[in-house]
Amino acid sequence: MTSAPLEPFAVTIDFATGALVPDPDVLDRRLADLDGYFVADIDDPGVGAYTVHEVRVPPTGNNLLSSTTVLAPGKVGDEYFFTKGHFHAIRDRAEIYLTLSGEGLLVMALEDGRTVTKEMRPGIANYVPGHWAHRSVNTGTTPLVFYAVYIGDAGYDYATIAERGFPVIVVEGEEGPEVRPNPRYVAS
Amino acid sequence: MTSAPLEPFAVTIDFATGALVPDPDVLDRRLADLDGYFVADIDDPGVGAYTVHEVRVPPTGNNLLSSTTVLAPGKVGDEYFFTKGHFHAIRDRAEIYLTLSGEGLLVMALEDGRTVTKEMRPGIANYVPGHWAHRSVNTGTTPLVFYAVYIGDAGYDYATIAERGFPVIVVEGEEGPEVRPNPRYVAS
Repeated sequence: MTSAPLEPFAVTIDFATGALVPDPDVLDRRLADLDGYFVADIDDPGVGAYTVHEVRVPPTGNNLLSSTTVLAPGKVGDEYFFTKGHFHAIRDRAEIYLTLSGEGLLVMALEDGRTVTKEMRPGIANYVPGHWAHRSVNTGTTPLVFYAVYIGDAGYDYATIAERGFPVIVVEGEEGPEVRPNPRYVAS
Repeated sequence: MTSAPLEPFAVTIDFATGALVPDPDVLDRRLADLDGYFVADIDDPGVGAYTVHEVRVPPTGNNLLSSTTVLAPGKVGDEYFFTKGHFHAIRDRAEIYLTLSGEGLLVMALEDGRTVTKEMRPGIANYVPGHWAHRSVNTGTTPLVFYAVYIGDAGYDYATIAERGFPVIVVEGEEGPEVRPNPRYVAS
């Protein structure tokens, strides 16, 4: 397969806000888009949960897709706001999350339900190996901003998490964030 | 091909210095390692030019390799310090450079000698598409620090640049950095 090389280009990232310049492709997720994801009911579906600002290149295995995500602080019940979370459609594709601002947790899960949780704070580069579903959770009081890079052909499988839930939830406990089993998780 | 998933892990990056924690694998390039790369002769081969701090994962096409590079300020003759520069062994593999500190230029070249130069400064994410050799140049007075992410099986072809030179050089001109044709470049 030979195709003409892409032209080099650049985007500028505001590390504090996650804003991209240029920013051609913004995904805006409201709580309404997360209906059914939280244990508690959503009070105000119009509240913004997160935006994803994507750098577009052809989604092929020789390219790298990248984006910033800006996840608002907040809770539904005692669960902190989170991203939907997904597996890659091509399961073995890796991803890197570099946190730029804010604080949170990155929860990751294999299809067999095993989970690993890692801290997110500015300067931490989290490696999400292939086969691990990944969801970011804002446990702080300011937006959680991170930069993600992944292999162009990875694709997205949101359906598995939408249907089964994530194996763990992150709630505000007496002494800070607590990772607990998700009572609504459907084991495979 | 099925192999057990890697375990998630994290490294912490100091955006000001490029230091990684943990930092298991540091490459230390002195001017002696760049003998023959500059137009002028090197006065002091022991001077440090750059260090590369690599995050190690298996170098396969489903993984992402990543590293920080810390390129010292300085000049050899009127040429600013630069990294050796390379093509990827698998030519079509892309790379992203996110500048964290300092200022410089990213010079890129196709094998036919066509070049593109882009600015590097904190917050700029440069996309280096497949087929473009890439070299970073520190045009400032402080270390140039950037974070690179590339596809795990990309590999390195340093020999082509070592043998033919880079099509352009970056020199200190009357009014700042100037990109000029490399008098020693060997066109294909």
